[in-house]
This record gives sequence, C-alpha cells and structure tokens, in this order.
Amino acid sequence: MTERADRIVVVGVGLIGASLAGALRSRSMASLVVGVGRSRENLDVALSRGFIDEAYSDLSTAVVGADLIVLAAPVDTSRSLLGELARAAPADCTITDAGSVKAAMLGAAVEAGLADRFVGAHPMAGGTATGAAAAVPDLFEGCTTVIVPGAAQVERVADVKALWSGVGAKVIEMEASDHDRVVARASHLPQMLSYALAAALGRGGDRRVLELAGNGLRDTTRLAASDAAMWKAIAAENRTEILAAMDDVESVWEQLRRAIDDGDGATLERIIHAANNFRRELETK
Amino acid sequence: MTERADRIVVVGVGLIGASLAGALRSRSMASLVVGVGRSRENLDVALSRGFIDEAYSDLSTAVVGADLIVLAAPVDTSRSLLGELARAAPADCTITDAGSVKAAMLGAAVEAGLADRFVGAHPMAGGTATGAAAAVPDLFEGCTTVIVPGAAQVERVADVKALWSGVGAKVIEMEASDHDRVVARASHLPQMLSYALAAALGRGGDRRVLELAGNGLRDTTRLAASDAAMWKAIAAENRTEILAAMDDVESVWEQLRRAIDDGDGATLERIIHAANNFRRELETK
Repeated sequence: MTERADRIVVVGVGLIGASLAGALRSRSMASLVVGVGRSRENLDVALSRGFIDEAYSDLSTAVVGADLIVLAAPVDTSRSLLGELARAAPADCTITDAGSVKAAMLGAAVEAGLADRFVGAHPMAGGTATGAAAAVPDLFEGCTTVIVPGAAQVERVADVKALWSGVGAKVIEMEASDHDRVVARASHLPQMLSYALAAALGRGGDRRVLELAGNGLRDTTRLAASDAAMWKAIAAENRTEILAAMDDVESVWEQLRRAIDDGDGATLERIIHAANNFRRELETK
Repeated sequence: MTERADRIVVVGVGLIGASLAGALRSRSMASLVVGVGRSRENLDVALSRGFIDEAYSDLSTAVVGADLIVLAAPVDTSRSLLGELARAAPADCTITDAGSVKAAMLGAAVEAGLADRFVGAHPMAGGTATGAAAAVPDLFEGCTTVIVPGAAQVERVADVKALWSGVGAKVIEMEASDHDRVVARASHLPQMLSYALAAALGRGGDRRVLELAGNGLRDTTRLAASDAAMWKAIAAENRTEILAAMDDVESVWEQLRRAIDDGDGATLERIIHAANNFRRELETK
C-alpha cells in the first residue's frame, strides 16, 4: 500500500464503501477496485458510476488475490464475515473495516485468527442517505479517521494509514475502548437524542408542529433520517458505552427539568453556560 | 397600517427587532422607524447599519405619536413594559410583540388594560447570534409568523398581519394556548435537548469528543449556542408546556434506553421508523 495496490476489495458498497471505492479509483490508488455486495442493483449503481471495476456477490471469490480488504457493511454484518475471510483471504492480505464500533470488531478479528493482519478504522464521515447512489468520492477529504491498530503488524497498520491518508483523511490513532467511549458521545448519543425527539414529535401530536418547525428543529432532527439497520447494529455493538453516554445526558436533563419546574434561574443559567461553552469549543476547534 | 405608517417603534433592537426594523425601512413601510433599547452601543449599531431612524433609551418618550409598537425584547422584559405602554402609548396605537410565548403575554396585556389593541405575534425566525450586529433585514422572508389576535379589535389584527406580510412572512392565526403547546414541541423542546447534550459533553469529559465530532454532533448542538437570558425567560413563561413536551420525549427516551439495554431490536426499529417518518414529513412538508 505504500506503492499502488493491485487489488483492493471493498465489502459493502453503501455510502461509505462506494465513496471509498470511488476515491481509490479517482486517485488511482489500486489497479483494480472490487466491490462486494448483496444487492445486484446497488452494485450496478457503483459500477455505472465508475466507483468499482468489478462486482461480486460472493465474498470468497472476490477476495482471491486481494492486497487489501475493507469491510464497509453494517458493523454486525462486517463482523460476521471475518470467519469467511480467515479462510478465503490471501495470507499476506491486510484486512480493515470502516465501522462505528471498534472493540467488538477487534475482538472478533482475534477470535477469527486475524489479529496480526486486522486493523480497525473508522472514518468520521457519513450522512443519512444510503447506498452507492448517495456516494461521493471526496467524502473523506479532511475527515478525521480513527485507526485502531490492535495487535496488527506494523506494516498492516501502515497500509491502513496510507489508505485513509491517500483518500484525504486526517488519520489519528486510538485504542478500541477509547474510540468506543468517545464515539458513543460524539456520535451515538446525538443520534439517539435525535431519534427520541423525532419519534416523540411524530407520535400523533399536533400536526402544526410541522408548520411551525424552524431551523432549530430541522438541525436537531436531521440525524433522525438515519437508517434503522445500521443503527440497530451499532446500538448492539456499543451497548455499554451508549448506555453510559445516555446516563450522562439524563443527569443533565433531570437538572434542567427540575430547574424549569422550580423556576430556578441560576441552575438553568449554569447549564446553559456549560452548553454555550461546549458549543464554542466545538466551533473554534 | 394598510397605508404606510407614520411612526413604528421597535422595542429591543436585537436579532429580531433590528431585522424587523431594517425590513420596515428597506421596504419603506413607515415614515419613521424608531428603536428603543438599553444598550447605547447596540442602538448605535442599528443606527449605523441604517435599520432605525432614531434611537431612544426611554420607552415613554419613544412612543409619543406612535402608530404601531413592536415589543421585541426577551419575553419577560417585553411583558414588564406593558404597564408603561398602557400609560404612555397613544390611545389609537396598535401594540404587538415578537416573543416565543403567547399566553402569558396576552394575559399581561389584558391586565394592563390593553386587550383591545394588543395582538400577539411570533415570527418563527431567529438564530443563535444576538444583537443588531447579527440582524438581517430579509430574515422574515418566507418565514411562518403566528398571529394571536386575543381580544383585539379586528383593525388591530389587520395592522399586525399587514406588518408581517409586508416584511415577507407567511402569516397564520392561532390561539395563544395552541401556539404555546405547539411551539413548546417545535422549538423549546429541541432547544432544551440541545442544551442538555452540549452541557453533558462539556462536563469534563474526554476532550477527544471534539476531535471526533462530525456533522451530526454539530447539527444537534447548534442550538446550544443560544443566549441564556432569552431562554431563561422562555422557560419561565412557557413552563407547563415545556415540561409536558419534555415528558413526551422522556417517555420515548426510556423505551429507547430499555431497548438498547435489552438488545430488543424490534422496539428499537419501531422507534427508529417513527423517527424516520417524522423526519420525512418535515422534509416534504
């Protein structure tokens, strides 16, 4: 991967996989970019948009001769494919993923006997649209991507770093448990809040809520359009950290609620200032 | 107001007030647009940006000869000024406001003896920036504005409708209690969620949350930059409806939490689909 790879296989050509495949092709980072997926229709979109050179539905066939395999399916699907990869992937092939949860994936890689050549990765990119039709090859331009080396050989880690740097990402290294804890708060928690808000408002409430919706409601419910299959899997794989993050927000929520109920302006102001400060940090970082 | 007004007085030249004043001037909807405020600095900004013709710090002086007075200060401040207006405003002058809560304001207008000439209004516009420096005269272009007639004379209601239509808003009529219930959900609830999320993440957590923040966290915490004074007042004035709206989201949140804890994919999926549906409605309305 420090040189151009011969054959890169992307498993799951959804928003992330197809965007990555497209970026690899547009930057000539591989002689051949192969897509693997279950939906023929989606593979055809990826082919016709020029994101992949070849399409397969069978994983074992697709990975013959692969230099690098990127698992970009929903996290539970990607994890379930490691056993097959341990049997079918060439021994000198680096395997990585692009999922939102890392500890479960790294653990599964160890179990599958892939510890030395599996490197976890998580590009902090995405969107609520799904499929190859929604893919954009410059999706990773400037995007922070976490690399979790686990027990992989250093040259495997270098391969995966080169892959993501090559498509424009800003690579940082973290341990799996740190990643899962931080991402539970930076990504999974806002996702759950957005789902809860949108589901609560959708429940047979006054339809005039839609009429009076401004940018605030639009911003806070934007994530609520996200795909159920993907998020069911993430919720299961990062359960403990997501619940802990939910505890954090619940504790503030309870204080906020009590302050409103009691007309306790000082507490309300303290919470709002903490929120203002966090937002300012986020804007200026 | 069906013809051009002679003297319109805007009390509070913050984001909403200064934008309205600017819109009135740029559309020549009044011979004179007068701004009233406590901060000389902010009034000077409004003057120098050409949003107001004259600036006053004293309300009673400013309203002499007024045809229309718009209260655009934080809701508690606007409410506290009604007594002074009842004494100082000309008898044939229409009084309106631009605040986020209507029942308390309408009630106070009745108490102040202004029932026949006070018309509540709430433009569903805003932003997290504050002050005349952040004002934009086309802020109300296409913006839904709720008019709450209360017990006002029909010609007063017509005046206020003409005011908001004149600056480009889409005017709808509602009762105060309906407005407050709907707005608690469309605006005050997302605001509280955004505050709770940002305050929870700001509380001495792992700073890498900032590093891994993507668009999702940015969208859901955008409202968390909003001003404490304004929102303390809104929380106090719409307390009951905000608490009820918080109950609604808490109930879904609890189900969501239990589903994640129990690995109950079916419930999770049901909540996510309800959220997807609400978001789709919002996007297509």
